[in-house]
Amino acid sequence: MRKYTVYGTTLSGNCHKVKTLLELLGWSYLWIEVDTRKGETKTEEFLKLNPNGKIPVLELEDKTRIPESNAILYYLARDTDFFSRDLLEQTRILEWMFFEQYSHEPYIAVNRWLLKYAKTENETSPLISANREKGNKALSVMETHLRNRSYFVGERLTIADICLYAYTHVAEEGGFSFDDFPNVRKWLRNVAAYPKLISIRE
Amino acid sequence: MRKYTVYGTTLSGNCHKVKTLLELLGWSYLWIEVDTRKGETKTEEFLKLNPNGKIPVLELEDKTRIPESNAILYYLARDTDFFSRDLLEQTRILEWMFFEQYSHEPYIAVNRWLLKYAKTENETSPLISANREKGNKALSVMETHLRNRSYFVGERLTIADICLYAYTHVAEEGGFSFDDFPNVRKWLRNVAAYPKLISIRE
Repeated sequence: MRKYTVYGTTLSGNCHKVKTLLELLGWSYLWIEVDTRKGETKTEEFLKLNPNGKIPVLELEDKTRIPESNAILYYLARDTDFFSRDLLEQTRILEWMFFEQYSHEPYIAVNRWLLKYAKTENETSPLISANREKGNKALSVMETHLRNRSYFVGERLTIADICLYAYTHVAEEGGFSFDDFPNVRKWLRNVAAYPKLISIRE
Repeated sequence: MRKYTVYGTTLSGNCHKVKTLLELLGWSYLWIEVDTRKGETKTEEFLKLNPNGKIPVLELEDKTRIPESNAILYYLARDTDFFSRDLLEQTRILEWMFFEQYSHEPYIAVNRWLLKYAKTENETSPLISANREKGNKALSVMETHLRNRSYFVGERLTIADICLYAYTHVAEEGGFSFDDFPNVRKWLRNVAAYPKLISIRE
């Protein structure tokens, strides 16, 4: 019995988040692969699903559509152990998810995209260097937070970890190194060891 | 009886969101002005409050500190009428808040910052032009959504509106125009008419 349809691509960390959570929950879903490189998110048909022209989009049985990867995580996880019933823990989970979209993804995901897929830049170009500096800053904030912690919030796997794992576990594909971030590396191994945890690394 | 301390600057939309919500709720707070232009968010002392070196930061009575403007909005609003008890409405509210941090703020707020405060760019520079295109795209997504709506979610003022209002109501200071976005202009007037609604326009 299928309940959810996900429009996404396996190349994207933002889509990976949704797939990971659905796999962890063991809930069935239909995955519809959308190729951003062929402009499939900019067609008139797709813009009816999400006027912002981005994936992932979660579609419910009644055709309600939810865009924004982190809003989808909230929708699916709110009443599960991957979120929390405690206001401060909930807030911390969302805090790291907003951090991810503002201070992490635009640098770590974008350098991976530019170097691995678009190939419009090289390792030494000014844009890559500027993003690398800001991405390393995000990793250093994570490193500090993980000094005495195994997970981001509440010492268990939550959607904050699922969110941050998506692009962090393939950051090396964007030219980032974990040599200066041993706590982040250890956390990545913790999360990767979780049963049913999937990777987008090809 | 003061309960909250907010570290922020009145120049910033992200800080404005928190001030606006606290004013609407009528809850007392101590505002501590932090001047980002003097590097006050990068001092060793401030980095103890928020290792990411950003404002606003909400401090509770027990010295718990919450960064990320939209996480602060959630923390303060969750059990009030500015959020919702319904899962789908909650998700929609967060969806627009993630949209704001990813697709709106980096262009609309940044052009205002560059043109009005930093003054390192001019109206025709490539960075300003690129941001203007992406900011106009965000405004057009909002315009479409507001076609048959007075507010973003549930036909009442929520933290989604408070979040999006912050930088939208001063977008003209960053060179944006509402001439092509009449629904957005009407929504801005709706929100501005709300009792106790404050502006950051000087």
